[in-house]
Amino acid sequence: MAGTLVGNALVGQSGGPSVVINQSLVGVIEQARKHRRITKLLGARHGTLGMMAEEFIDLSRVGARRLEAIAATPGAAIGSCRHNPDEADCARILDVLRAHNVRYYFYIGGDDSAKSTNIIAGMARAAGYRMRLVHIPKTIDNNLVGSDHTPGFGSAARFVANAVRGDDLDNQSIPGIKVDVIMGRDAGWLTAATMLARRKPGDGPHLIYLPEVPFSITKFLKDVRRTVKKHGRAVVCVSEGVRDASGKLWAKRIATESEADVKSDSFGHFQLSGTGALADYLTIRIKAGLKSLGVSRVRGDTFGYLQRSFPGFASPVDQREARMVGRAAVKWACQGRSGSVAIKRKAGKPYKAQAALIALKRVAGKNRVVPKKYISPSGNDIRPAFRDYCLPLVGGLPATGWLD
Amino acid sequence: MAGTLVGNALVGQSGGPSVVINQSLVGVIEQARKHRRITKLLGARHGTLGMMAEEFIDLSRVGARRLEAIAATPGAAIGSCRHNPDEADCARILDVLRAHNVRYYFYIGGDDSAKSTNIIAGMARAAGYRMRLVHIPKTIDNNLVGSDHTPGFGSAARFVANAVRGDDLDNQSIPGIKVDVIMGRDAGWLTAATMLARRKPGDGPHLIYLPEVPFSITKFLKDVRRTVKKHGRAVVCVSEGVRDASGKLWAKRIATESEADVKSDSFGHFQLSGTGALADYLTIRIKAGLKSLGVSRVRGDTFGYLQRSFPGFASPVDQREARMVGRAAVKWACQGRSGSVAIKRKAGKPYKAQAALIALKRVAGKNRVVPKKYISPSGNDIRPAFRDYCLPLVGGLPATGWLD
Repeated sequence: MAGTLVGNALVGQSGGPSVVINQSLVGVIEQARKHRRITKLLGARHGTLGMMAEEFIDLSRVGARRLEAIAATPGAAIGSCRHNPDEADCARILDVLRAHNVRYYFYIGGDDSAKSTNIIAGMARAAGYRMRLVHIPKTIDNNLVGSDHTPGFGSAARFVANAVRGDDLDNQSIPGIKVDVIMGRDAGWLTAATMLARRKPGDGPHLIYLPEVPFSITKFLKDVRRTVKKHGRAVVCVSEGVRDASGKLWAKRIATESEADVKSDSFGHFQLSGTGALADYLTIRIKAGLKSLGVSRVRGDTFGYLQRSFPGFASPVDQREARMVGRAAVKWACQGRSGSVAIKRKAGKPYKAQAALIALKRVAGKNRVVPKKYISPSGNDIRPAFRDYCLPLVGGLPATGWLD
Repeated sequence: MAGTLVGNALVGQSGGPSVVINQSLVGVIEQARKHRRITKLLGARHGTLGMMAEEFIDLSRVGARRLEAIAATPGAAIGSCRHNPDEADCARILDVLRAHNVRYYFYIGGDDSAKSTNIIAGMARAAGYRMRLVHIPKTIDNNLVGSDHTPGFGSAARFVANAVRGDDLDNQSIPGIKVDVIMGRDAGWLTAATMLARRKPGDGPHLIYLPEVPFSITKFLKDVRRTVKKHGRAVVCVSEGVRDASGKLWAKRIATESEADVKSDSFGHFQLSGTGALADYLTIRIKAGLKSLGVSRVRGDTFGYLQRSFPGFASPVDQREARMVGRAAVKWACQGRSGSVAIKRKAGKPYKAQAALIALKRVAGKNRVVPKKYISPSGNDIRPAFRDYCLPLVGGLPATGWLD
């Protein structure tokens, strides 16, 4: 029967892990067991690197209890990679997939993962090799086109909003100027989520800067000065991806020219995370530029990898949806479809969302930025409407109380 | 009656906040309401700064429900300060205390707070002003002499151990070298607690460096090289307070000589937190010194203020004990005693601890370091016995699972 494609399935995880990427993995594993056309489910060790090296593990026999424990655990349980396969790599991968009779291909990752999946899909078609390929979304950056939001974002947003709330309470305790640098290379979604830290007027973050708005140090210092004059302190959230008017990353601008410092990752991206340089630079500029304010405490923190890896603090909605997209991918593949799983939000309240399958090329290599409607006209804050968008994804924050 | 001293009470919070410092505050408030010899309980805004400026708030009327919400909230709800009062300041404070008929004085803070409390106690005695003064311990650094451990430590230890566990899972997902810099200026207790992140052989952190052991870059690079050769990756935890053989802080050594960078806080301490400089420096040294290893991913994170301020992740034991020391301080003061509240652990299992009152001068300005019995002979790791000491204070970590 032409419609029935029987063979092995392969699943891989790619890019920076999140705290729910294993939910999607477990969703694939669970669902694959329900379909008789999937003979065996292989896991690629470290994504496309493991595919090229034929490093697979058999995921057919992992017990249900262990699966639940893995699902609740941050990190990529079968290993991830920062490898952006070129045409030759993809040709090699297709050869390996054919050799292992892989007919169902699931790749969990961001826009780069959708891209490589799309390339392999095209090569398989051209070679007349029947295969279903589904990209499963994962990125704390929330920047995939075609989705209301991405698995991984809600939990990272929950972490950063809660961290900034705590940091703001710390700053209320001992007033000063605090700069927090938040992940997000090409889009400011995660940095925008810090606005959820506010409970009442006067609470921080008082200023929020996204990559979507050109970042000027002169304006930044003016903003901080005005905030300190008003509140006697300032908590400022800055995306690691802020750029100057010419589009150049500030993190790149301030890096020294030494080989050791200016380092690109193997996707060809400049290294932003895993360094405190931007926060340190901004605090130095504040200390030098705002001496007349007489604020002795100026500090900078870079939230770093904790945003995507802190165990036991995931958003329940995010966990559920990450599982859902993994399951949905297998269902669609077994119905003969290929594409990228997207999350669509239903209109109205309470919050509801469902999975949809969209074309790989819509997502591949694309970047979805924070729309203007969420950014204040001054370019240094997030509008209240963003709370309605973001809070359901985060699932609430721990309760806090204070003396007023 | 000579034994009965009736008057007002004053409570203050000092130094870097913790996630349980408000538990101690609420413990004082609750207990003070039970003693008729305490007429009114005042809160000093921002510690000794508020005392000198006569900035007080009346804590007598805060409702029970709000008190519970405050107790569960990080930060210092009546404000804290980084002010180390000199003799003149203490004399001014005593004048203010007398003017407000303060007979019961409670100060929540670290060794510097015990010191100022001791100075004021001495001045009151010399002036013949009858007063009870009790220092209530608070520090995530766990460095107070005379205590098994300090309120604030267990929760900060829980945060860093969990953060390193997540970071280690991230590092297992995409292998590389990761340096995490942990708070602790003069003692390595908090950095030592990262050893709790390990669940099985091979787990990180693979190397742990405390201020108690002179830190040599040459040895550090050798250690990292050996770890990468063995595990193919390395997660390394370094205290912000590591010093060279001459006792000089590495953070100070690497700082540029510019005014903006070399900044001391108003306790006269060099600024360690709120900068990513040490982590960045160590990653640069690794990149330069270990090129031959061919590890492309070398990253550094500085955990920063999150360690002492992240809401909703406190250790339950720590919360309970922080409340206990606040209550105990009021009880002892009302029994006519002054001193510093210490926590004593009872021998045997399960874990039990109780409060004790010790002399202020035993704690004042003193520093308790991690004893040799907990440090591996190689000076780059923590011995298993430390787990028995630390785990009960942390109260367990979120469950995680993995494919082996």
